[in-house]
Amino acid sequence: MRKNFGAQTWLFPMPVLIIGTYSDGDLPNAMNAAWGGIHDHNQIAVCIDPPHKTAENLLKRGFFTVSCGTAERVVECDYVGIVSGNDEPRKIAAANLHARKGEFADAPVFDEFPVALECKLVSFDPKTGCTVGEILNVTADESVLDEKGNITFDKFHPLIYDPVSHNYYSVGTTAGKAFCDGKKLKK
Amino acid sequence: MRKNFGAQTWLFPMPVLIIGTYSDGDLPNAMNAAWGGIHDHNQIAVCIDPPHKTAENLLKRGFFTVSCGTAERVVECDYVGIVSGNDEPRKIAAANLHARKGEFADAPVFDEFPVALECKLVSFDPKTGCTVGEILNVTADESVLDEKGNITFDKFHPLIYDPVSHNYYSVGTTAGKAFCDGKKLKK
Repeated sequence: MRKNFGAQTWLFPMPVLIIGTYSDGDLPNAMNAAWGGIHDHNQIAVCIDPPHKTAENLLKRGFFTVSCGTAERVVECDYVGIVSGNDEPRKIAAANLHARKGEFADAPVFDEFPVALECKLVSFDPKTGCTVGEILNVTADESVLDEKGNITFDKFHPLIYDPVSHNYYSVGTTAGKAFCDGKKLKK
Repeated sequence: MRKNFGAQTWLFPMPVLIIGTYSDGDLPNAMNAAWGGIHDHNQIAVCIDPPHKTAENLLKRGFFTVSCGTAERVVECDYVGIVSGNDEPRKIAAANLHARKGEFADAPVFDEFPVALECKLVSFDPKTGCTVGEILNVTADESVLDEKGNITFDKFHPLIYDPVSHNYYSVGTTAGKAFCDGKKLKK
């Protein structure tokens, strides 16, 4: 038996995306978004409601970053989601986050978030807030790289947002190998 | 120090989305997609390359389902990703999956995938494969519900795809509480 929940915006897993932009005066800002994903061969889509300071910023500057929230920084991730840059322009300082300008995007990369995508604005829908960005670069702190220089979940602990319980979760153990496990069913 | 990886379509966590459609003759089909996310207040976006059988099907029928891959069914999830419905029209039977028509969408809901979104096609970009669907219903098997009737990660084990290692992962332990943990930083 199945239960119907109606038209819910639920997906499992759902990411914790920290959208970084510059406000006027090069003041770094960040917000927390769960609605988004890879959109195309070189693009990401994220939903940013038009009243957000972030929407104003990315339309002015044409760039944004998308950092993946981490278990180590769950308090900071949640803080930038519940406090608006409209009410607290210095929220980045209040959260003890440290920003430096991206090498590829005119948007802040935060020291505390080890993996970030630097993006150029492609389109913004003022009705829905749907924001599409071209991914210019993925930047990762060396602290989350393995001995071969690859990002590894052994050191990098991205957050998952559960839209039902409103809990954040971490990534668990290996469950399988892509492009491999399915061969067992091949005739 | 940070390392630049260039323009990679990486996001962490990335979902394992099983896209269900009907081929001609009401033959259920499924494919595996990692590029997608909630797109708007009632929409989901997924990237489905135009040569896929799924693209043909959803344009013909106007509906699709999005099931969340699970750790219990990692072999089946991977199988529908590596075998094309163009080459193996009876791939659902080959994977021992069992489909019944959605209550809200003219597309298959699979018994083996406990959580699925039933969607109506809103738009399809033939150049990129970007597919937007209106979420009509979220359906969940009773086996993944808690005593209050809510979907719970205690029983539901969605897969995460790591685009770097190409491993599948399961969801781990609770890392925090959304709309709550960040209050610690509020002045």
